[in-house]
Amino acid sequence: MAYTDPDIGAFRQFLAARAASRGAVTLEQQREIFDSDMAAVPLPPGCDSEALTLGAVPAERIVHPGAAAGRVLLYLHGGGYVFGSLRSHRHLVARLAVAAGAEAFHLDYRLAPEHPYPAALDDALDAYRALLARGVDPARLVVGGESAGGGLATALLLKLRQAGLPQPAGLYLISPWLDMTTAGASYAKVGTRDPMIAADRIALVAQAYLGAAGDDAFTSPVHADPAGLPPMLIQVGSEEVLLSDSTSFAANAALAGIEVRLHVWAEMPHAFPLFHTALRAGLRAIEEAGAWMAARFAGG
Amino acid sequence: MAYTDPDIGAFRQFLAARAASRGAVTLEQQREIFDSDMAAVPLPPGCDSEALTLGAVPAERIVHPGAAAGRVLLYLHGGGYVFGSLRSHRHLVARLAVAAGAEAFHLDYRLAPEHPYPAALDDALDAYRALLARGVDPARLVVGGESAGGGLATALLLKLRQAGLPQPAGLYLISPWLDMTTAGASYAKVGTRDPMIAADRIALVAQAYLGAAGDDAFTSPVHADPAGLPPMLIQVGSEEVLLSDSTSFAANAALAGIEVRLHVWAEMPHAFPLFHTALRAGLRAIEEAGAWMAARFAGG
Repeated sequence: MAYTDPDIGAFRQFLAARAASRGAVTLEQQREIFDSDMAAVPLPPGCDSEALTLGAVPAERIVHPGAAAGRVLLYLHGGGYVFGSLRSHRHLVARLAVAAGAEAFHLDYRLAPEHPYPAALDDALDAYRALLARGVDPARLVVGGESAGGGLATALLLKLRQAGLPQPAGLYLISPWLDMTTAGASYAKVGTRDPMIAADRIALVAQAYLGAAGDDAFTSPVHADPAGLPPMLIQVGSEEVLLSDSTSFAANAALAGIEVRLHVWAEMPHAFPLFHTALRAGLRAIEEAGAWMAARFAGG
Repeated sequence: MAYTDPDIGAFRQFLAARAASRGAVTLEQQREIFDSDMAAVPLPPGCDSEALTLGAVPAERIVHPGAAAGRVLLYLHGGGYVFGSLRSHRHLVARLAVAAGAEAFHLDYRLAPEHPYPAALDDALDAYRALLARGVDPARLVVGGESAGGGLATALLLKLRQAGLPQPAGLYLISPWLDMTTAGASYAKVGTRDPMIAADRIALVAQAYLGAAGDDAFTSPVHADPAGLPPMLIQVGSEEVLLSDSTSFAANAALAGIEVRLHVWAEMPHAFPLFHTALRAGLRAIEEAGAWMAARFAGG
């Protein structure tokens, strides 16, 4: 197949070759492989990370010379709630912090299946409260995340609404996983065009996250009424089975009167900004998100 | 109600007062009032319009000093297929042409009920063929329109696909009317929050446009498979009963692998860029569209 994007053909070949060579791996192996692969991506020049805790949750702060005082990104990494870490996503969070001219907090929330729902959401809420206690102004705070981290970010904002806590100035979602049920139209329509995620894997990971809990609006925010949430930017690839999570949530948010920017990137796979070293479109998405966050911090 | 936008409260008061003072008007009166109100908006400095025909269709060409050679916007005005004209929309098309750095062609397609479907679509197709015959490069051409003009622009691209004609480089839609059936979720959900359009009026206008024809994918493109259409930008207000037309079509286009930017503007009513003299958000939308069109012309 011929692609318009200059990078996606090679990236798809890389994914297929890697899957063929690797075979079955345990979750522990998957965590370690993902972390070491991703940790090899260098941070932008001048970026550094400092370990800290937010409430009782391990986290890190990404600092760099271009971070304007008081402008903050809280980022929740992806990995299906079962893998991903500060190591794997530090480079992405650092890129986003630089693009936004902000400092970033990156959260090491507890993972399933060892810690099923609501552990991750409890951690995110603890961390958010801790940021407020540190004096972070919610009007100068954006909450973001990709994949499961996007679902967690959205659930956090729903939880803030329930708890009567102030909303942040924006919600930034990359390929968010917002529906545990694999019922979206994109599962059938995109299907095997998705080079990264299959429906049966989503179902397994959902089971690991839900544990004994029932699926609800905090685990599948696509079923929530998003009224009261802040303006949002959603970036998603057209070649992913999770596409309908984004389009459905965007429609719900629009109907609730929320400012929504949905940008569907043709030919791009799941969470493509994470793979910006292979996909230059990921860098453009990060720049777009940075400009959007800067406008949110400025009240625009 | 308190609004975030600085202009929308006064604009809604203006609309309510005008509706109360005017009472019932005939279609002829509505056409004349709309045309004279809108024709009073001045063109941007240096803009001029030249009458011409495209095929057999009356049209005008908007020229200005910043128009780069060979970059073209074909614009189809709105007005429910029953009103609107070169007079009413010239100022918007001129603003868009300036923002895009392009020349613009503005089409005086035939209106219903005197000329029901497919008269308008036939005219749009004639005009598109005429642009190609003039040497316009489809890779440097964007087709745009608002409301019914957005529906007509989308139908034109579906017709091009059917006819084997080249697609333009982009499709630009403002609050497009893409569904004749008033079945979208926004009719119930937005309902009377919409200060401009009511469901019963949409049904009447749909009847006028359809005449003896049945509703199909060319009259309600929300039911079309948009595969093969070019990248699109959709701008829509959150306070309009037509909102679901935009969100549904965006979802369909995304599933077809098309690059989609959907921007839902909170608090904004139907076709708000047309009212840019009262709503500064309309000017920002025009600037956003101009930048997007410029990137499309450049192959971005």
